[in-house]
Amino acid sequence: MELIQIGIIHTPFKEGKGTPIQPKFSGDSLGVVEVYPEFEDGLDDIEGYERIWLIFGAHKARKSLLKVIPYRDTVERGVYSTRSPARPNSICISPVRLVERDGRMLKIAGLDMLDGSPLYDIKPYIPKMDSFPDVKAGWYDEVRGDRENVKEADDRFYKGD
Amino acid sequence: MELIQIGIIHTPFKEGKGTPIQPKFSGDSLGVVEVYPEFEDGLDDIEGYERIWLIFGAHKARKSLLKVIPYRDTVERGVYSTRSPARPNSICISPVRLVERDGRMLKIAGLDMLDGSPLYDIKPYIPKMDSFPDVKAGWYDEVRGDRENVKEADDRFYKGD
Repeated sequence: MELIQIGIIHTPFKEGKGTPIQPKFSGDSLGVVEVYPEFEDGLDDIEGYERIWLIFGAHKARKSLLKVIPYRDTVERGVYSTRSPARPNSICISPVRLVERDGRMLKIAGLDMLDGSPLYDIKPYIPKMDSFPDVKAGWYDEVRGDRENVKEADDRFYKGD
Repeated sequence: MELIQIGIIHTPFKEGKGTPIQPKFSGDSLGVVEVYPEFEDGLDDIEGYERIWLIFGAHKARKSLLKVIPYRDTVERGVYSTRSPARPNSICISPVRLVERDGRMLKIAGLDMLDGSPLYDIKPYIPKMDSFPDVKAGWYDEVRGDRENVKEADDRFYKGD
């Protein structure tokens, strides 16, 4: 399947190292989603949503890893049990906060992606479809101690420049 | 960006018409995610998760619509404010319940995709990252009356056979 780029995401994060590993760790960082002009009409009515899913490419990630040591763990895990950006298809989903729409520019908060990430899709966050606050989350739920304080990426999943 | 197919999703739904528009409306329907052998190692540790995100293609969807009338609405909306499968990149995300893993076969419940949907990625559902129970959801929150009872798709977003 060939994805066409519909926009680009501008963020303060220029490299993997130091990038928040979850949007909630990005503090007050703001970014801008720039949707290309030919797709602007598709943004109508998005203003009413508090959160939106960005579907984007981890364009600087290593590829094709089936086993990875997650940032918050010390042992190898199957990549499909992790949110590592380095995976057979380096496609990521992130539910960011929609701060403001200005034409084809969306100001967003709660970021965990690198500057320049190619955008492929935007979907509204709909709690009735997307929110499951109480489900078990495997090894992630077992993270204890120092590991719980890991909030930033290093360069393990990214190619050098 | 070129996505490689890592598996295929088997479901009871052979055409758009009658397919649940949200996983929660699929009742007791079960499906099977068949991950291709060369990606099986990536599934390790997935058993501990109660829900998983499937990232898949809406292979029978019409393409490139920027304005659509959603199943639960009567007026046109920008496609990026909807979960319509007919969109510039017909890629879908669905948080299904993981019932059981048997090798490279994952038994799932809570389905909203057509039989034969090509699979591109699996991610664990992690409530701390993914769950926002109380956010506003634009026009979707305003659906009232008969529209609230719409639980199945028709063929508006799908190509004929």
